[in-house]
Amino acid sequence: MSKETLRKSIREIPDFPIPGILFYDVTTLFKETAVLQELSDTLYEMYKDKGITKVVGIESRGFIMGPILATRIGAGFIPIRKPGKLPAETIEESYTKEYGTDTIQMHKDALSPDDVVLLHDDLLATGGTMLAACKLVNQLHPKKVYVNFLIELAELHGKDAFEGVEVDSVLTL
Amino acid sequence: MSKETLRKSIREIPDFPIPGILFYDVTTLFKETAVLQELSDTLYEMYKDKGITKVVGIESRGFIMGPILATRIGAGFIPIRKPGKLPAETIEESYTKEYGTDTIQMHKDALSPDDVVLLHDDLLATGGTMLAACKLVNQLHPKKVYVNFLIELAELHGKDAFEGVEVDSVLTL
Repeated sequence: MSKETLRKSIREIPDFPIPGILFYDVTTLFKETAVLQELSDTLYEMYKDKGITKVVGIESRGFIMGPILATRIGAGFIPIRKPGKLPAETIEESYTKEYGTDTIQMHKDALSPDDVVLLHDDLLATGGTMLAACKLVNQLHPKKVYVNFLIELAELHGKDAFEGVEVDSVLTL
Repeated sequence: MSKETLRKSIREIPDFPIPGILFYDVTTLFKETAVLQELSDTLYEMYKDKGITKVVGIESRGFIMGPILATRIGAGFIPIRKPGKLPAETIEESYTKEYGTDTIQMHKDALSPDDVVLLHDDLLATGGTMLAACKLVNQLHPKKVYVNFLIELAELHGKDAFEGVEVDSVLTL
């Protein structure tokens, strides 16, 4: 199986969630055993030698491959969630979206200064949520932070916003 | 590592989300590499011989161990989500909660009649959400359905509601 096969397994949905948007449906990557396995193997090969100790996934599509990768490379898994969902003491970051402001939270004791972090989400568009996630993680001063997406939409140049951070994707569309 | 160690790794948060509720925080199970690995191994041993072809996880805490187990036993992963999140054609179930009604959705083409399904979520309390998830999955007529939780709160007798379904938990509290 190749990246071309992974690419073909993404379902394209026109006009979702609003007219004019072509939505990349990643659920079709997770549904088939062989495709899910290939995705897991690809991520493992990308990150096995980085010394990563914690994979941090963004709710909720970042919760699917994030934990799989964590167990494959021998790291722990940390969730970033919407406000009010995490029960212990949290830290947070707010960021501006097209319409209004969003906030994300992480447990305050989730990371230590010894940690090497891989931040994971499914899709890089303009990168607003992931930039806020980077700031959130950096509040806890880990040793190093990597950023990963399953899919990067190249034409939106979201990658440009991440200065000094290694940003990689399984597929670039 | 034993079940006792897993038990001790669950953080207990009093009065969350409302006064009088003791909340079991599972994020502390996922955070430490060794505990996450033990959890993955325990689930693998429970389900490796059942012929499961699809693990179905309920948003969003069921998205963490569900995908890990899917890759371990060689199954695909299917998400059940809140309304408006899944982009292709969906089926849905509504159910009554303490205050009002909730609805969950799954893609209509997520399962076929050949599938053996494991439905997974983190916690069994009264079982309302999982019962709706069983009905949802059974709309697509899979061959067999198993139900799994990380934690079962025995005193609430949520298990009694699942007639004729094999319901198992990693830990009973």
